Amino acid sequence: MIVLNLNRNEETPLFRQVFFQLKKLMDTGVLKPGFKMPPTRELAEKHELNRSTVYKAYEELWALGYIESRPGSYSYVRKKKKTGGKIQHRQGSRIPWDEVSVEPVTRMYDAYQELEGMFAGMGRAEVVNMAGLSPDPRLLPAEDFRRSLNTVLKEQGSGILKYGHARGYQPLLEFIANRMQIHGISVSPDELLITNGAQNAIDLVMKLLAKPGRPVLVESPTYHTVLPLLEYYNAVPTGIPLTENGPDLEVVKQKLGASRPSFFYTIPNFHNPTGITSGQTNREELLTLCECHGVPLVEDAFEEEMKYFGKVPLSIKSMDTRHVVIYLGTFSKVLFPGIRVGWIAADRECIRRLTAIKKYSDLSSNLLVQAALHEFCGTGYYELHLKRIHRIYRKRLQVTLRALRTHLGFKGVSWIEPTGGFLVWLTLEDTGMAEGELNEVFLRHGVSVAPGSVFFVDREIQPHRYFRLSISSLNESEIEEGIKRLGQALSTIYNNGKVSIKK
Amino acid sequence: MIVLNLNRNEETPLFRQVFFQLKKLMDTGVLKPGFKMPPTRELAEKHELNRSTVYKAYEELWALGYIESRPGSYSYVRKKKKTGGKIQHRQGSRIPWDEVSVEPVTRMYDAYQELEGMFAGMGRAEVVNMAGLSPDPRLLPAEDFRRSLNTVLKEQGSGILKYGHARGYQPLLEFIANRMQIHGISVSPDELLITNGAQNAIDLVMKLLAKPGRPVLVESPTYHTVLPLLEYYNAVPTGIPLTENGPDLEVVKQKLGASRPSFFYTIPNFHNPTGITSGQTNREELLTLCECHGVPLVEDAFEEEMKYFGKVPLSIKSMDTRHVVIYLGTFSKVLFPGIRVGWIAADRECIRRLTAIKKYSDLSSNLLVQAALHEFCGTGYYELHLKRIHRIYRKRLQVTLRALRTHLGFKGVSWIEPTGGFLVWLTLEDTGMAEGELNEVFLRHGVSVAPGSVFFVDREIQPHRYFRLSISSLNESEIEEGIKRLGQALSTIYNNGKVSIKK
Repeated sequence: MIVLNLNRNEETPLFRQVFFQLKKLMDTGVLKPGFKMPPTRELAEKHELNRSTVYKAYEELWALGYIESRPGSYSYVRKKKKTGGKIQHRQGSRIPWDEVSVEPVTRMYDAYQELEGMFAGMGRAEVVNMAGLSPDPRLLPAEDFRRSLNTVLKEQGSGILKYGHARGYQPLLEFIANRMQIHGISVSPDELLITNGAQNAIDLVMKLLAKPGRPVLVESPTYHTVLPLLEYYNAVPTGIPLTENGPDLEVVKQKLGASRPSFFYTIPNFHNPTGITSGQTNREELLTLCECHGVPLVEDAFEEEMKYFGKVPLSIKSMDTRHVVIYLGTFSKVLFPGIRVGWIAADRECIRRLTAIKKYSDLSSNLLVQAALHEFCGTGYYELHLKRIHRIYRKRLQVTLRALRTHLGFKGVSWIEPTGGFLVWLTLEDTGMAEGELNEVFLRHGVSVAPGSVFFVDREIQPHRYFRLSISSLNESEIEEGIKRLGQALSTIYNNGKVSIKK
Repeated sequence: MIVLNLNRNEETPLFRQVFFQLKKLMDTGVLKPGFKMPPTRELAEKHELNRSTVYKAYEELWALGYIESRPGSYSYVRKKKKTGGKIQHRQGSRIPWDEVSVEPVTRMYDAYQELEGMFAGMGRAEVVNMAGLSPDPRLLPAEDFRRSLNTVLKEQGSGILKYGHARGYQPLLEFIANRMQIHGISVSPDELLITNGAQNAIDLVMKLLAKPGRPVLVESPTYHTVLPLLEYYNAVPTGIPLTENGPDLEVVKQKLGASRPSFFYTIPNFHNPTGITSGQTNREELLTLCECHGVPLVEDAFEEEMKYFGKVPLSIKSMDTRHVVIYLGTFSKVLFPGIRVGWIAADRECIRRLTAIKKYSDLSSNLLVQAALHEFCGTGYYELHLKRIHRIYRKRLQVTLRALRTHLGFKGVSWIEPTGGFLVWLTLEDTGMAEGELNEVFLRHGVSVAPGSVFFVDREIQPHRYFRLSISSLNESEIEEGIKRLGQALSTIYNNGKVSIKK
């Protein structure tokens, strides 16, 4: 016999009290599978309830699989499959995730784990982090952006919280089309697609163009996340050596002659990781080569806006009269990386296909944030902000180059002076130490840099010699301190190795 | 001889005035390639300028490829590759985008264009839109969300505008883990991954699991965007017929016996497009089958929160003691679709791999919006909002079902009554008309529904008979009006075709 303990003064409706108490009796095994439940009328009368109250509780029990009821007949407690609850974690999975994964995921997963491992510890408070590539949050105009968000939400209300178009928020597309003229680029809004930052743009371009088994030309070294992603799409990353003037065009010619690659991926400004900026002639010749061979040229312009010394040629896209260049832009290095807004500028036909891929990948980028960004840029905050960070980073880069000369004057240590951006590429000769060991020494001295090997197509060829130093999130005294610590670390390394010091 | 027209009262610095005027002379061909530029000293003296001002202008011209200068020698105007400018649009692209695209993109592109074409005109103001599946923006608490955004930005400042972790914003992960217990699901935050809505979740799961050439089981009909995406990954979508109780388990058994599919994709609640809800037994048996065959079961729970009649079994994930289920959740149907926040709950090992894929796809989802959503949910707005929309949509669905009975009582017209969600699946027999023609008739009567063929794996097998009717963005009188118009349209169709009316 079932006895329920109901409280008519409680907020919980009576039918839910009935439901919960019956459910508990079944969960705890007091009412066992096969038990014949009393008819709703009987239970109702006994507890002075409406019959419909009991009926509603039974209905819920039925829906959750606790009872079986046949029309016009009694209900029985049902043998129920256990729910996860607390025991879930005791058993292993029935799925061997390694085996069921698509094969190239495994390589990507390994690369990811290596990366996580490598950057672990680098973010510790006592370590000067010269490894990461986030812009300094202290310089981000959060308060102005908050105002822009408020304006948009007050003016457009929930209309701006709906699904957006896959292509992007039209006024932002128009702003970007206009804004790109500053960099000599003339495109209309329908030659643009908004993405979740540049990384999403890279993925979309690969989804469109990276043919399995076919080469893709990349500078070596290059932006490290590009390599596992190319491998995921079964493309063959083919490294083009980098000179101080840009990609080595002789090698490009050879590779283009040998087979038609799916595309060429280049970072002409303040190249990641080397900081190198391609010269005007190099840009022109590379474009001509891609035009002649009908090979799309993907121009990653992630630091287009960071030209604070004014000595950088216009983008390759600005010369792209034959619509060969797929240009990748982003707000992530000058504004807020966390809002994930970047864009692709390319031939209309190319953009249409990329838009289809974007649609099936995640429907569209975040509409609210696009609208807020448009508001932010439209009111002039953007230009003001750019001026401000140009002034600050110009100074910071000058401090960096001076500190390098002061603290890193060892024989065997060299670097290329960048003309903008955040990155300096360090070469260390004759340390006799592995990359991991070197890293350990740096960390012990309270500074972290990004190990160079992850950036190379053929990692074995370039072992243990390169480090990427980033000043993106550091102020002048932090830069000074970081480089000083690097100098101390290197002094240990070279003294132990009995390497003589330059001066 | 060069004559410059400089204005010392202008805001533009003098060196930029010099630069722009020289650039213009070269752009317009007044200074031709090969022209020997005057030495900086000479030009400076003539215009009463500092020599450094002229030098700076020359430097910029050099950087932009306008002049060549050899150290210690004269500078010459350079033959420059044309920039895009206005002429860009006159020439076609050198790239045949169709040919260079990866082959399965073409199919996806076709599907996208078909979809765009199909939904064109459906959004017109005079048409009652029963085709789309966006939640009613009039019910979205934009003002509360605005407050949450403000709180987050005021409390965390630009810290919340940085790059986030690929896995997601930790407090939101914790909220979701807690919240899922309401649906009987017990997971810890490291069994979760935040995505850009459910569509991104679907794409990530396919990137992990869809092996080329291997079958993937899906209900037929199913959510239409899944099919072109599977084809993109070269998987073979294999349709499982849907009964009123869920996927046909006999066919599932056959298919599982024949070959091991990469995964099973199911929508157990208020199925898209049919509105069908799988029964408890069906869920249990499906789970057991997947467990036995070691096949991951992808449970798309996009309308988990829309159970406003309280008659729906718990999620399959709630019974998933062996970690076979990959559960996809989203805020897009109960809150703001435009902010693109969804999540995946799955075995830890599976989530780790998906996180790696997410990292290389777009680094992470939008951090600011995740934090605002956490703030919004944490302050109880979410529960209040859910209660409110449950009440409203319950009423709306009742109005829908009543209106269907009133206006669509034709012989040959039938539908399945859903127990929640937004969707009703209409079957029209013996109209003798093609889907496109039927659609035209509906539009002429001022109402749009989604044509059914796009939802089927084998579109040829199920022609011209099904339509999906959505009430997600309509209020009661709009629903009433839309269904009335449908009735009028159908009355024309059936009278013309001399089909008799039921009553």
